[in-house]
Amino acid sequence: MNAGLVARLLARFSLFFAAACLPAFGLSLFETGDAAIDARLGFAVLLGLGLVIGLGLGLSGRSSNSALFRRESLLVVGLAWGVASVLGAIPFWVSDAMPSFVDGFFECVSGLTTTGASVLGAPGTRSVHELPDSLLLWRAELQWIGGLGIILMFAVLLPVLGISPGSLIESEQVGVSDPRVRPRMVQRGRALLRTYLALTFAAAALLWSVGGLSIFEALCHALTTLPTGGFSTRDYSIAEFRSPVVEAILIVFMIVAASSHLLIRDLIVGDREHRREAIRNPELRLFLAILAGCVLVSTVVLWSWGGKVADSVTNGVRDYSSPMTAFRDAAFNIVSVMSGTGFATANFQCWPGTLVLLFLVLMLIGGCTGSTAGGLKVYRLLVVVRVVLQRLQAFVRPRSVAVVRVQGEVLAPREIDGILAIVLLFVVANVIGALLLALDPRIDVLSACSAAITAIGCVGPGLTAVLPTETGFVVANASGIDVGPMGSFGALSAWAKVCLSLLMILGRLEFLALLVLVMPSFWRRR
Amino acid sequence: MNAGLVARLLARFSLFFAAACLPAFGLSLFETGDAAIDARLGFAVLLGLGLVIGLGLGLSGRSSNSALFRRESLLVVGLAWGVASVLGAIPFWVSDAMPSFVDGFFECVSGLTTTGASVLGAPGTRSVHELPDSLLLWRAELQWIGGLGIILMFAVLLPVLGISPGSLIESEQVGVSDPRVRPRMVQRGRALLRTYLALTFAAAALLWSVGGLSIFEALCHALTTLPTGGFSTRDYSIAEFRSPVVEAILIVFMIVAASSHLLIRDLIVGDREHRREAIRNPELRLFLAILAGCVLVSTVVLWSWGGKVADSVTNGVRDYSSPMTAFRDAAFNIVSVMSGTGFATANFQCWPGTLVLLFLVLMLIGGCTGSTAGGLKVYRLLVVVRVVLQRLQAFVRPRSVAVVRVQGEVLAPREIDGILAIVLLFVVANVIGALLLALDPRIDVLSACSAAITAIGCVGPGLTAVLPTETGFVVANASGIDVGPMGSFGALSAWAKVCLSLLMILGRLEFLALLVLVMPSFWRRR
Repeated sequence: MNAGLVARLLARFSLFFAAACLPAFGLSLFETGDAAIDARLGFAVLLGLGLVIGLGLGLSGRSSNSALFRRESLLVVGLAWGVASVLGAIPFWVSDAMPSFVDGFFECVSGLTTTGASVLGAPGTRSVHELPDSLLLWRAELQWIGGLGIILMFAVLLPVLGISPGSLIESEQVGVSDPRVRPRMVQRGRALLRTYLALTFAAAALLWSVGGLSIFEALCHALTTLPTGGFSTRDYSIAEFRSPVVEAILIVFMIVAASSHLLIRDLIVGDREHRREAIRNPELRLFLAILAGCVLVSTVVLWSWGGKVADSVTNGVRDYSSPMTAFRDAAFNIVSVMSGTGFATANFQCWPGTLVLLFLVLMLIGGCTGSTAGGLKVYRLLVVVRVVLQRLQAFVRPRSVAVVRVQGEVLAPREIDGILAIVLLFVVANVIGALLLALDPRIDVLSACSAAITAIGCVGPGLTAVLPTETGFVVANASGIDVGPMGSFGALSAWAKVCLSLLMILGRLEFLALLVLVMPSFWRRR
Repeated sequence: MNAGLVARLLARFSLFFAAACLPAFGLSLFETGDAAIDARLGFAVLLGLGLVIGLGLGLSGRSSNSALFRRESLLVVGLAWGVASVLGAIPFWVSDAMPSFVDGFFECVSGLTTTGASVLGAPGTRSVHELPDSLLLWRAELQWIGGLGIILMFAVLLPVLGISPGSLIESEQVGVSDPRVRPRMVQRGRALLRTYLALTFAAAALLWSVGGLSIFEALCHALTTLPTGGFSTRDYSIAEFRSPVVEAILIVFMIVAASSHLLIRDLIVGDREHRREAIRNPELRLFLAILAGCVLVSTVVLWSWGGKVADSVTNGVRDYSSPMTAFRDAAFNIVSVMSGTGFATANFQCWPGTLVLLFLVLMLIGGCTGSTAGGLKVYRLLVVVRVVLQRLQAFVRPRSVAVVRVQGEVLAPREIDGILAIVLLFVVANVIGALLLALDPRIDVLSACSAAITAIGCVGPGLTAVLPTETGFVVANASGIDVGPMGSFGALSAWAKVCLSLLMILGRLEFLALLVLVMPSFWRRR
């Protein structure tokens, strides 16, 4: 283990991460009010701590060589997640915007993992709109940085390391410092960063141009849409803008953000051949087909149900006997949930039970590989479906050749095994997470399940059981805790928040962290 | 297709099935009261119809040869299930014990598939105790016959046909009429029948000998315990007997019934070698380990929760601040649910959310292969766990040999694929079933999910969401429908009952029916 190099890289990361709060810190200097002064203090502490850690680690690791192998790379990635989760929480905690460090940690992890679940807005704590702009910008920045980190990690670092966490398959071991590999890596990383930046600015510009959002709000929402994050600057998320145009723009960007960033790049700036290949990508097609099918089904179910759900923004109701309202809300919220963004325009936990379950299923599936969307990923679903179909065919025609193809290429049996194994590992993680969270007697079973699923799938809102009454829907648990799209995770107990934070990291790193940490043998060999 | 032979076999089955109602018919002749007279009429109609169908089909198929191949065998099995489901419903319907044919059909399918879910006891319909003894005996008989049919089908018929539905694998095709195969088949079938009969009588004798149950009730409960059925002669199931001894006896027989019948036979009458092998069986060990672990965890969770749940029988409460009550109720109900029996001694849907979810997980897992227990089966869980562990190991040591062993034997990759495929098919069936049932706006999401799981897993009771109030737990849905252990499926709409009946058959035949029906190519080849 090259501990010196690890320390040096972590030092660099800490300095970079602390520097990332400079825009928010700068904004806080222009703000007035007690909350802004508190925020200033928070950012100052973060900057100071980042400097101390950075310089300390940098000095301790100064005399090491630069051979970076897989073990070191993975350790740096893991430790960087830890450092960022703790450092990023400091402004929330020191500024008193959140009542405890655990709350700040939850919010920060939810940001970095691009989940978007928030502790804000619970009874007795601050709402989103009570936070100074600088802290709102910091929340958005955390998601943007987290998203970038995930894209670079999965599209650049891991393939170079020969690890495909998607299938638990690893190819030959290559050092990151290998001179043949490094230029390709850097080039690929730069290309991805350019697309990510360009799309973010495009989203911000579009959102601002159509009116209704200030330039600050447009930027914040762009920063949280492209990483499929879902933090908003408003208490009731996108519902507050009451604008079909804003919703349409966000739908497009959420779909783009949940597609493979490499594919999106090919589609935008690739040549004709690349574009054709991207359009033919079976994962992208299946993703779009599922979205279209679910929006259609949801619209029909919502419309034929024709119920009324309280609108938190206007204190009126959203009436689903209108097919247009049904379509509009179904389209936005289905795309938001499946892409793992987690924006909401309606309190969809009050929708018919079938749709509540459909949301859970979509949270489990998630978006495409190579994106910041969470969940199982459409590619794995595709492989699973093809394997099942192939087995059924083999049952009917025992002499048929048993191969599973994706886009013309035959998948190796080991690879299929690996994908099926990770699918089942994913299911088991969700079950254990739900069992743990359900130990809290104050929440209902559906809240516990959905909180685990939304955390592991990095989506954002959960779904709390509701009960229709004469005057509307009420939350159906002992304590009135609502983890749904118009609710908050703030009222959960501290251990539940820690548990959910760990589930978010587990889901975000697709069990890689778990695998690395629990396997001592991984550390023994070179 | 040898249609004549199929007709002749079905004719024989119809006659046998009609004759099976003779004990219940006989009992009804000794009963007094309007309900008994109605029941007599019901059985007479069943007998008449059975005779007509039997003779009609018998005559039409009289001139055929006797070459029975796989297609014919599977068709006969499928049609026999259909005939039994419809004929068996007639006494319930004609006797007016149930308000509609759909209710009778649901009850009959629930009996034949050894599920044990009942439409009795819903508001406005009859309760279990209002039925004449003859109909109660018929319910128990349906479960006993269904259980026997399943054991013979999975342990004798399908292996001979070269089909292992467990893994969707089929070996060489052999005709049932093959003279080399037939004697072995008959011998194996007889041996299983003897064990099944002996265990049933032993259970009845034991239950009667300890007091509290009449000889009729002891027999009925033995008839529904051995096939892991779960129909009771009392409104509130085993809770009404208030006897720890009866519960202990039933726990033992439920565990035996959910273990492989071939293994049980080896344990009872096998030689030393067979016994040792049976004890070492990894599926049985895992099954017992899961049971023990879950009982332990549930006892601790129940006790540390220490809540009070209304006792439907005494109008008092069951107080879980007593560790003995916690252990007693946890042990009985966990074993009942995992074995797929579905007896209940407590309204466990009011237990902490973690235990509600645990019940759902146990319903999904089910008992051992070669038993009448439903669900995924412990063997498949075992294979899945080993595959996941093996893949994780391969991730750490890429050069290790990738084989999965069960009891010393290496599983072929195709077999593993098949098991993983059926596991996922099973998950998909549960999800689709839940999505369909949740279309009913009168029930909550948990009821819909649990109803689908309990039907596909052939368990019996569902789990309805409850809400704690000052005076106790209330059902948390719009209509007050309770499909839980102390509730009834009777208040569901007719389409939901049909849907659940189909799910029970689907789960019972482990998708074999589905595979055979949806694949036209299966019918084309010989």
